[in-house]
Amino acid sequence: MEQPSRLAGTVRPGGRTARVRAAVLEATQDILVEHGFHGLTMDQVAARAGVGKTTVYRRWGSTPGLVADLMKELANQSSPHADTGDVESDLLANAVSVWEAVTDGRLGATLQAVIAAGTCDEEAADALRAFFTRRIDEWATVVDLAVKRGELPEGTDGGELVRAISAPLYYRLVVTREPVTRRDAERSVSRGLAAARAGAFVSDP
Amino acid sequence: MEQPSRLAGTVRPGGRTARVRAAVLEATQDILVEHGFHGLTMDQVAARAGVGKTTVYRRWGSTPGLVADLMKELANQSSPHADTGDVESDLLANAVSVWEAVTDGRLGATLQAVIAAGTCDEEAADALRAFFTRRIDEWATVVDLAVKRGELPEGTDGGELVRAISAPLYYRLVVTREPVTRRDAERSVSRGLAAARAGAFVSDP
Repeated sequence: MEQPSRLAGTVRPGGRTARVRAAVLEATQDILVEHGFHGLTMDQVAARAGVGKTTVYRRWGSTPGLVADLMKELANQSSPHADTGDVESDLLANAVSVWEAVTDGRLGATLQAVIAAGTCDEEAADALRAFFTRRIDEWATVVDLAVKRGELPEGTDGGELVRAISAPLYYRLVVTREPVTRRDAERSVSRGLAAARAGAFVSDP
Repeated sequence: MEQPSRLAGTVRPGGRTARVRAAVLEATQDILVEHGFHGLTMDQVAARAGVGKTTVYRRWGSTPGLVADLMKELANQSSPHADTGDVESDLLANAVSVWEAVTDGRLGATLQAVIAAGTCDEEAADALRAFFTRRIDEWATVVDLAVKRGELPEGTDGGELVRAISAPLYYRLVVTREPVTRRDAERSVSRGLAAARAGAFVSDP
């Protein structure tokens, strides 16, 4: 992912509307990090962003609306897929960026707050699905390129391989609550690749 | 896992203390399923269980204390590792029981509520870690037996293989919020096994 963990200054300036959005999303992320999804209120976001409540209600409607827009912005700022010409290096770049994201104090806490929100709020769940689907599709390209270069079997499902590499990192983060290390990211890549080379990711006919 | 999704009648009868515990844990799970961790209060649990508040406060201390005890009981009721004499069948039994747990309305909602709680509460996080560590250790035995039978390379890390097979199911459940199917469980096993056979789960020296 390699998102900058702060939004301020990264959302393009472009006039008042864009500035208001940047301030509101920054405040949303601040509150998610400090208090979690259940601590997020429209009024607090408005106050912290220095924006009128009416504006926040009119443009975002609800706190899940804020979360959805934040995730959209984080997806926009995420790094494109690597293209080193070698599938192992490309997938490692992906896995390391996931590791960096989940262990980044601010970004990791944001992801965890939205994951928690997704368990009880349909709009937050949709925002997660949209965010990760976009990231998975982006990185699946790395696998398609490797198949074209003959590094992996014809028909290897890139999205599934990317999921299999990311999954153990998120699993440790939010399910087993174990530390997530760079070594875990490296292992995930070598295990995913070993299975892919053996044809275990070739799509069902 | 293959836990019965209701606790009532499954906790050993054994006198008043055990009956109180069964009623309190059943009420805790009811409220987690219906309202999530943030909707869980000691007073509600006491009222729903028909038990005095003082008892609930004295024995469990706090809502994370209730969650920790519930997870302990669910771990106690979880199925032991399979032992069919074939590593693929054993691991499939594990993966299918994870799939059954996460797609069971009551148990799946309980796990999601505790995962959400773990993102913002250290005691809930500890309860998750204890629950999953115990389940992972239990199922890792399957891999140790396979190594002894010569089905998998010497030094294969059973805990890591079990994690790698479960992770994609939980990843779809709480992170990407995608459907989790039995086919996903089957794929997870064949992918994990392919990597294990290639030696990708042999522990670092």
